[in-house]
Amino acid sequence: MSITAEQLDARAQPLRLLLFDVDGVLTEGTVTIDGNGGESKTFSIRDGAAIVWAQRAGLEVGLLSGRASDATSRRAAELGIQIVLQGESNKRAAYERLLADKGWRDDEVAYMGDDLIDLPVLARVGLSAAPADACADVQQRVHHVTQATAGHGAVREFIERVLRGRGLWDAVLASHVNP
Amino acid sequence: MSITAEQLDARAQPLRLLLFDVDGVLTEGTVTIDGNGGESKTFSIRDGAAIVWAQRAGLEVGLLSGRASDATSRRAAELGIQIVLQGESNKRAAYERLLADKGWRDDEVAYMGDDLIDLPVLARVGLSAAPADACADVQQRVHHVTQATAGHGAVREFIERVLRGRGLWDAVLASHVNP
Amino acid sequence: MSITAEQLDARAQPLRLLLFDVDGVLTEGTVTIDGNGGESKTFSIRDGAAIVWAQRAGLEVGLLSGRASDATSRRAAELGIQIVLQGESNKRAAYERLLADKGWRDDEVAYMGDDLIDLPVLARVGLSAAPADACADVQQRVHHVTQATAGHGAVREFIERVLRGRGLWDAVLASHVNP
Amino acid sequence: MSITAEQLDARAQPLRLLLFDVDGVLTEGTVTIDGNGGESKTFSIRDGAAIVWAQRAGLEVGLLSGRASDATSRRAAELGIQIVLQGESNKRAAYERLLADKGWRDDEVAYMGDDLIDLPVLARVGLSAAPADACADVQQRVHHVTQATAGHGAVREFIERVLRGRGLWDAVLASHVNP
Repeated sequence: MSITAEQLDARAQPLRLLLFDVDGVLTEGTVTIDGNGGESKTFSIRDGAAIVWAQRAGLEVGLLSGRASDATSRRAAELGIQIVLQGESNKRAAYERLLADKGWRDDEVAYMGDDLIDLPVLARVGLSAAPADACADVQQRVHHVTQATAGHGAVREFIERVLRGRGLWDAVLASHVNP
Repeated sequence: MSITAEQLDARAQPLRLLLFDVDGVLTEGTVTIDGNGGESKTFSIRDGAAIVWAQRAGLEVGLLSGRASDATSRRAAELGIQIVLQGESNKRAAYERLLADKGWRDDEVAYMGDDLIDLPVLARVGLSAAPADACADVQQRVHHVTQATAGHGAVREFIERVLRGRGLWDAVLASHVNP
Repeated sequence: MSITAEQLDARAQPLRLLLFDVDGVLTEGTVTIDGNGGESKTFSIRDGAAIVWAQRAGLEVGLLSGRASDATSRRAAELGIQIVLQGESNKRAAYERLLADKGWRDDEVAYMGDDLIDLPVLARVGLSAAPADACADVQQRVHHVTQATAGHGAVREFIERVLRGRGLWDAVLASHVNP
Repeated sequence: MSITAEQLDARAQPLRLLLFDVDGVLTEGTVTIDGNGGESKTFSIRDGAAIVWAQRAGLEVGLLSGRASDATSRRAAELGIQIVLQGESNKRAAYERLLADKGWRDDEVAYMGDDLIDLPVLARVGLSAAPADACADVQQRVHHVTQATAGHGAVREFIERVLRGRGLWDAVLASHVNP
């Protein structure tokens, strides 16, 4: 059900919150486990830069993960992400609590997810997206599928697309050319 | 010796146990070793989700690995996998002990492996499978080769295929759309 | 604005310093975070060999990173890199301090970067370069884009190209064939 | 200077020792460094299986690395590799000491390497090989380039090729089909 570029631009206007799944969106969808029970995740630096740009442009960024992980908490802290919902096996319930708490509407939220557990939230938000390597059932049900794969720029590409849709990208670029 | 879709559906009906090799099936087939003797493995989150769905659908899931690794034990515990056979250099003997212990028949088991050590068990089970990047001698001898590679969704794809063959996939999907 | 091979050769002549961004240039642009706050980065051994060859050929090598990381410090020490500027959110200011300190001119420096934060320095140096997988806005603004991707030989390829441009490659090769 | 299949078979006959570089041959050519000075390397399980088969078939296996790493020592121990030469910046000198010590001739050794530092030994041995992603100067100077890349089966493919050349592969396969 992919939408046109004009429709995506229109859906980008009311956004206040860019919400992201973690595994398979901010990471490749793999987890590395060692023999001591430690667990690590691998994040993209360029995804992180885009998250900071979105925040500077006035958007909130949040994480919504079914799995709880200290690595996620640390990456969120590093990027100044304050909305971090982890270990939420029922993502729709967590999403509804968040919106009630903040007083936000569905059309003020974009969400990117990659697997079946993300479908209920993807069906609710104003703008839904998935990485190029999301599972087929998700790709068929979102507004926008990025060309980049998860952990390798999917989040960066989506944020850049939203900022362009709101006419904010040239300012991001200019702030770097002339810092 | 790949089989038709109809034959695969037929072989999926009597299954009780989905048994998986670890290295090269649940992982990319690499092991990361540090200077302190620690060892880590990298698993796919989407493979893990599918294992949980198979269990909820009433199938047992088990692991059969030639190599013993604490990382494997931890991943198994996380996914609620209770049949974990590790350090089994003779996989056929381990397989036979398991079936004798459980009272299961060969046609009630599916096994996915990637290397020569897996051939004796692959030759026995009702439904044999391999990832897209299994070694050639294995690919030539299994019922089904997935399109996905090991550690990147081969297990997910196979479980989804088995659940579809048994008519159980729509229920999995529906349980996510309306959790 | 890519330049011809002859122009690249000409720009290679006055170089004294080969300066490299770290994330997305010396690495794939990913960072692995564990639950204890540890962070690791993955470097290419062949990139490292080329850095040593450049130093032996009389060129200085330096690192200029927006992010501070102990892993970067350790890799730099291992390769004998003494110019290590980390945690520099304003790369242009750091670059200008370095040149003032050393008494070097812009045309004596080559810089390779991959993201918007690198643009101000890329616009200043005598020879600017980016890996094959740098972001589009950077690729459009550098003299040279390598065929290799970051963390998989982009630095090696660029150093080899500079050494060839200065007529120094045959000596590197000969020193290995007859050590 | 690649040779014909018949020439490769002929060069496989006198071999006693299969010698391998580590970084870029047994691994992808990357090293992961953490903030505590730890270092890890990633090895292929299927490469390891082939090393064990070669040993069982009566061949010695050895490692010759320019870089010293505890991870290499541990992987070697795990595979029962007793010839482990590490931290050898002059590989030819280390190679000559080994041959003098063992009383072996050049035509009794095969060596696989990926970078310039390997050229002197590659020029000496009876059978020289490189992974598909070795640097160009090496690929041009070896008898055989594998289709697989380093860390993803190059060593496995080469060992399998040598064992086939000596007529030993069918026995390896048969020992697995009927363990």
